[in-house]
Amino acid sequence: MADTDNSSPSFRYGIPDGDDRERSICTRCGFIDYENPRIVVGSVATDDTGRILLCKRAIAPQKGFWTLPAGYMEQREAAEAGARREAFEEARAELTIDRLLSIYTILRISQVQLIYRASVDNPDTVTPGPESEDVKFVTFEDIPWTDLAFPSVSWALRDWHATRELTEFNPRTNPVNGI
Amino acid sequence: MADTDNSSPSFRYGIPDGDDRERSICTRCGFIDYENPRIVVGSVATDDTGRILLCKRAIAPQKGFWTLPAGYMEQREAAEAGARREAFEEARAELTIDRLLSIYTILRISQVQLIYRASVDNPDTVTPGPESEDVKFVTFEDIPWTDLAFPSVSWALRDWHATRELTEFNPRTNPVNGI
Repeated sequence: MADTDNSSPSFRYGIPDGDDRERSICTRCGFIDYENPRIVVGSVATDDTGRILLCKRAIAPQKGFWTLPAGYMEQREAAEAGARREAFEEARAELTIDRLLSIYTILRISQVQLIYRASVDNPDTVTPGPESEDVKFVTFEDIPWTDLAFPSVSWALRDWHATRELTEFNPRTNPVNGI
Repeated sequence: MADTDNSSPSFRYGIPDGDDRERSICTRCGFIDYENPRIVVGSVATDDTGRILLCKRAIAPQKGFWTLPAGYMEQREAAEAGARREAFEEARAELTIDRLLSIYTILRISQVQLIYRASVDNPDTVTPGPESEDVKFVTFEDIPWTDLAFPSVSWALRDWHATRELTEFNPRTNPVNGI
């Protein structure tokens, strides 16, 4: 049947009726793909001694580099619940969320990152999930700065350090030179 | 041509290879519609005397009810820039963003709202944009509570009032009974 053709989708750009911007429209079925910024939820999560949970990525992009537990927020999920889910998926870590640490906007890929300060309830049983090669707790001094997966990981770690003694504070945002 | 059929899109639910959740998949072209939570950016924006800018909706939903300037964040747009854009579109208001006031999650519709505290640089020339029937500045005491468009509008107004004297504070979130 022609209408169950499984070949690759084919999109054109056009301005739908009643809209004022170009959107991606399927040339086959007319579906309008309203692309929106995507939300990443993650955490700087520490054990009782203040060491930070890092995960070594087992998947692209940046396989083999260290990151914070984070990933795309799902539908019908609260942001804090998403940050907890990601920590469990990547490190089998169970988190208690403290508060919002930062919001970073990655314009190039239209991503908004909500990073929470959190504590790990089960530090003795964290272990890599399927998307991690390794997981570990490190002191701030032992962070592998040159082996971090993304710029925003280093932003979050620095912002965590700068606010670690604070309870009431405005969430940090991109550094002035951050993109 | 069969492959430019413009009839309505037809989606089925299925779990794509390498995924662990049901996604909406076009039965015609195989396009996977990864639905993600959508981000609304908005503001509680005041004039020099602390009066708050409200907009009367000219469009559904909740046509005729009062709201804060807010709308969907666009691709490749910073959150604060989106809040400024929405205030200009709805009230021709030019804002200076102060700081993040609140993050609300509306689970039922998978919406994350980032609401900023802001000031209006041109209070004398605000005027309704195409999506507003009317715009006005009101004191907190004169807010038309029973004619507000959405619960999160009242949350934002109350949170603005509770934090109006603060500079360093954690963004407010849904009230305990908020959905």
